[in-house]
Amino acid sequence: MSTAGKVIKCKAAVAWEPNKPMVIEEIEVAPPQANEVRIKIVATGVCHTDLYHLFEGMHKDGFPAVLGHEGAGIVESVGPGVTEFQPGDKVIPLFISQCRECRFCKNPKTNQCEKGWAADSHDVMALAESRFTCKGKKVLQFMGTSTFSEYTVMNQMAVAKIDPAAPLDKVCLLGCGVCTGYGAAVNTAKVEPGSTCAVFGLGAVGLAAVMGCKAAGAKRIIAVDINPDKFEKAKVFGATEFVNPKDHNKPINEVLAEMTGGGVDYSLECVGNVAVMRSALESCIKGWGVSVLVGWTDLHDFAARPIQLIAGRTWKGSLFGGFKSKDGVPEMVKAYLNKKVKLDEFITHKMTLDQVNDAIELMKHGKCIRTVLSVSPQ
Amino acid sequence: MSTAGKVIKCKAAVAWEPNKPMVIEEIEVAPPQANEVRIKIVATGVCHTDLYHLFEGMHKDGFPAVLGHEGAGIVESVGPGVTEFQPGDKVIPLFISQCRECRFCKNPKTNQCEKGWAADSHDVMALAESRFTCKGKKVLQFMGTSTFSEYTVMNQMAVAKIDPAAPLDKVCLLGCGVCTGYGAAVNTAKVEPGSTCAVFGLGAVGLAAVMGCKAAGAKRIIAVDINPDKFEKAKVFGATEFVNPKDHNKPINEVLAEMTGGGVDYSLECVGNVAVMRSALESCIKGWGVSVLVGWTDLHDFAARPIQLIAGRTWKGSLFGGFKSKDGVPEMVKAYLNKKVKLDEFITHKMTLDQVNDAIELMKHGKCIRTVLSVSPQ
Repeated sequence: MSTAGKVIKCKAAVAWEPNKPMVIEEIEVAPPQANEVRIKIVATGVCHTDLYHLFEGMHKDGFPAVLGHEGAGIVESVGPGVTEFQPGDKVIPLFISQCRECRFCKNPKTNQCEKGWAADSHDVMALAESRFTCKGKKVLQFMGTSTFSEYTVMNQMAVAKIDPAAPLDKVCLLGCGVCTGYGAAVNTAKVEPGSTCAVFGLGAVGLAAVMGCKAAGAKRIIAVDINPDKFEKAKVFGATEFVNPKDHNKPINEVLAEMTGGGVDYSLECVGNVAVMRSALESCIKGWGVSVLVGWTDLHDFAARPIQLIAGRTWKGSLFGGFKSKDGVPEMVKAYLNKKVKLDEFITHKMTLDQVNDAIELMKHGKCIRTVLSVSPQ
Repeated sequence: MSTAGKVIKCKAAVAWEPNKPMVIEEIEVAPPQANEVRIKIVATGVCHTDLYHLFEGMHKDGFPAVLGHEGAGIVESVGPGVTEFQPGDKVIPLFISQCRECRFCKNPKTNQCEKGWAADSHDVMALAESRFTCKGKKVLQFMGTSTFSEYTVMNQMAVAKIDPAAPLDKVCLLGCGVCTGYGAAVNTAKVEPGSTCAVFGLGAVGLAAVMGCKAAGAKRIIAVDINPDKFEKAKVFGATEFVNPKDHNKPINEVLAEMTGGGVDYSLECVGNVAVMRSALESCIKGWGVSVLVGWTDLHDFAARPIQLIAGRTWKGSLFGGFKSKDGVPEMVKAYLNKKVKLDEFITHKMTLDQVNDAIELMKHGKCIRTVLSVSPQ
């Protein structure tokens, strides 16, 4: 029996308020309107940004909301004017839109899309709507995506159609973490062959950054983390050396300077900690070192002495790895299918949507790389 | 009577201690040793970095010293092994060396030269010597150059031979300020044709940055300063619009965002104030805005929220405008002789070396753009 055109009642994890576990609820998902696509979410990763929103207060008015932004699914139905998607298409919802028309989409230097900004700021889908209600209340779509729900609705400018051969419980990771880290090395830092890189923080984003550095041809990839358990994993993705700052009595930038004859060519901060951001910059070599902020925090300023930049370093930042989302994600899916990009190795835990709070706890305590939740049966 | 091979006794302005006027003294300048060049300084600009060292404590152990690093002169004699220079050559002393051999000199991305670092850090000429004494004491060579002296000695890796037609009382400005600002726009920011730029601070460096933006083909060049007296001058160098932050009740980055539909493509901080550095970054457009630190301070951290970079802005810094010094300065001299670069318009005051403290006072109170001191008769 087709559900097209009808409200779908389904299961979702609703975050009612900050600092409280999410609650599995029945929500109502309205049919897609003009240019919108309703998607059955098959699988979703759990990313630190979900945790951050829930416990560190990204925007305090962002509740109630359905979190989750690293999912993959199948188109259930489409609204008027949608010609690019059909029911049954495999897709990845995108928390950065790509309208292909705005001045940002037309500029090759950026993956920002002006039409998605309202969505990003207010936790609604691109063009500023939410199609969710629960117990008579409007429920926000966190980062526009809300993949902790059996169904979600997205504007077509924020949906990537992917290869039908793609396993959704793997490629969901391309919805955020893996593209973010990999692209930060390849697209933002533009790591050059033969170079020396340092990656700070070996969560999924950091490991993906290691993989990106390797793909770009880096000769030395120094993995930095205070948790030595992560080092074996980093090797799998291409790290050549490991440094635990706790093993040294001097600042990590001095350790790296000694190891590299002055500093690394590229450093990537994949923690979201402003002290680490400073260390990552200071670990770069004078003259041409490039440091990229990849980890997210909006609670504090990052800072350094002006001489650090005046001596020739560059400080950049990366959002979704600099990938223009609708173009980049299908390419990364192909790269995975062609074994150019690893995904399976990130997945340390598999659970169901019902266990989402357990997955959050694992992440909070650094006990997983990525947990993938199965959401709807395929 | 030739002075070659002999100690020269000559006049110099000696800074004996911080926060005190310099004293005109007779100093002894030893003959050039291997690979060194002794230069009769004909003219020198007075730059804010001299003031900074004297009154804001760049390094407190940097006394006694002869300041001045924006000079031009004539080779008096050369030491053993010098083949590139002959007595009578017109030259500009360089506070950044270019040995052409180190890994920095060989890398097109930077104008750092590893061999000059000791000099920069310890106020001695490149390869860490000083040839000055006064009243029996060793006197440091500030920034390696010491152009507030009738004679100085430089390693040949830090001397640029320039066109014999060059008027030394003009091209001296290419020893620091004008190259610094111009190159920050052209070489570091890499301003693109048709772009919108903002230059914060309209001293000599800022005005040179305005000139650089114009040379690079910028369409709009917004000059920002709290001293409205500077605006007429900025127009001479190519500024198209003027903003005085004191005329507005909102932050300058919001003013610029409104003027430009979201922010400027490039901003150049030419003040050396960490609050202005932040404003300059925030004034850039998301996605591709590039902000360059040009002004110098080492007293405080510069800072911003991580989202400023993560949204796609880039923070860079520029030292001597990114020019490889021995290559770049002679080219800039030619550009001046070919009327591609203005210099005369920077010079608001002409004085003699004896008046160096008056020149410092003028600068301290923002009463000049550049004062050029005549040092030795030509």
